[in-house]
Amino acid sequence: MLEKAKSVNQALDTAIPLREPLEIHKAMRYSLLDGGKRIHPIVCISACELVGGQESTAMPVVCAVEMLHVVSLMQDDLPCMDNDDIRRGKPSNHKAFGESVTILAVDALLALAFEHVATMSTVGVVPPMVTVHAIQELARSIGSQGLVAGQFLDLSSEGSPEIGLEGLESIHINKAGPLLEASAVIGAMLGGGSSEQMEILRKFGRCVGLLYQVVDDILDITKSTQELGKTAGKDLVADKVTYPKLVGIEKSREFAEKLNGDAWDMLSEFDQEKAASLLAMVNFATYRQN
Amino acid sequence: MLEKAKSVNQALDTAIPLREPLEIHKAMRYSLLDGGKRIHPIVCISACELVGGQESTAMPVVCAVEMLHVVSLMQDDLPCMDNDDIRRGKPSNHKAFGESVTILAVDALLALAFEHVATMSTVGVVPPMVTVHAIQELARSIGSQGLVAGQFLDLSSEGSPEIGLEGLESIHINKAGPLLEASAVIGAMLGGGSSEQMEILRKFGRCVGLLYQVVDDILDITKSTQELGKTAGKDLVADKVTYPKLVGIEKSREFAEKLNGDAWDMLSEFDQEKAASLLAMVNFATYRQN
Repeated sequence: MLEKAKSVNQALDTAIPLREPLEIHKAMRYSLLDGGKRIHPIVCISACELVGGQESTAMPVVCAVEMLHVVSLMQDDLPCMDNDDIRRGKPSNHKAFGESVTILAVDALLALAFEHVATMSTVGVVPPMVTVHAIQELARSIGSQGLVAGQFLDLSSEGSPEIGLEGLESIHINKAGPLLEASAVIGAMLGGGSSEQMEILRKFGRCVGLLYQVVDDILDITKSTQELGKTAGKDLVADKVTYPKLVGIEKSREFAEKLNGDAWDMLSEFDQEKAASLLAMVNFATYRQN
Repeated sequence: MLEKAKSVNQALDTAIPLREPLEIHKAMRYSLLDGGKRIHPIVCISACELVGGQESTAMPVVCAVEMLHVVSLMQDDLPCMDNDDIRRGKPSNHKAFGESVTILAVDALLALAFEHVATMSTVGVVPPMVTVHAIQELARSIGSQGLVAGQFLDLSSEGSPEIGLEGLESIHINKAGPLLEASAVIGAMLGGGSSEQMEILRKFGRCVGLLYQVVDDILDITKSTQELGKTAGKDLVADKVTYPKLVGIEKSREFAEKLNGDAWDMLSEFDQEKAASLLAMVNFATYRQN
């Protein structure tokens, strides 16, 4: 995983050279190159390799999914959203650059993500129809039936405990699921996976997304701001519905364990050596401390 | 032009059905279906027809360019940008829906624009390589070397009269030019135009973009808020560098006339009957009253 994260960081660094307008590119690089966990990239590369593909084929999409993920974090932190001053242990993007630059950097990252994916075919590495499908998948994952829906439901849920477990699961699946799902599916697509394999990886991505959010809920109330690198206890302050709030910490941990098991089961029919990297990622998502 | 605008409005209405999350789709439709001038769509369709293509082939891209244009207006009006309460004679999007919903609706429109363009090939209407090129062109036009650069330079120019004519031209070309350029080039691409034709239409789009901004500068100080449907006199209040400020209204009008002539010249070697619609658009952009 560390090796993969390193090659992802190099590719991201190359994807955004520091050029004019300088302030915009500084803001893009500030949030993109600050040592995130690179979960989406690793899922994408690992899914590609799982079905027999090469890391290098997936790299443009790998950069794109991380750009889109970082966009969602930058927006999440805006004053009109979750209003957070800290991200990954340093001032959040709008605190460092101001809101207008952050919003423009978000636009630029979104545009670059799609441009980057298109390049796979304009340089002749990937058949154009595969690229078109990848773009469709990516666009859906961040749109009104994907991340936007998750973020909207999340904002609307503040102070609404009547949402219940089912409602919360729907929010959580939409918050992190769609982009992880897209990362896994497109990885498998680029690796030449069958439609059955792509469907398994779609479910796997959704499951890991939910798992990730459940663990996020737990960490928010059990860890300090310093340990998390972002403001702790935020869900309580915003009166958000979370798993620990609805069922307690112990049951939330059990649910995370169950999702961990589900994810392992989904990959049981693949070559376990090739699946090792995705399974390590599942365990990391479950047992991480920040 | 009116006929084209009507079919564009129908296509946009179909592209965004009112579904869950309702509030997000209401906000998307609020700004997209409010009778804008549809200049980008008309340029795209007309460029396609100019080189022998059909309106229907261009329609997904036509919807996409209008979505991206409306996104730029929604963002422009945000408190941290130009902070405008009125757009097209009604409350701007964030005034009607709140900032967080506007930002999510912007994300959803951006994503839908790319998804829509991808659909041209997933339904088999356009060869996938053409779609990939269209997506690359679109992404570049709104990214850090396109609209984002224009918007950033514009914000940075407030209170900086030392920018001068050359600097102002660069801001204006980047503010409206890139998306009009993309609209014209992709229209020609979808119509099967030659690379020479595409290059002429690229220059044409850039020229019309600059023309549009110069006329915007003039209208901002010569018309009332009611006539414009958006706040008049904003450039003066924000201490923006504009053409009237640098060279006076009379010289600004002469410059607009010159750009109008340039645009006509660029299309002089095309069949003038087929070019009529683009030329009518150029005159509309020059002599419009709002």
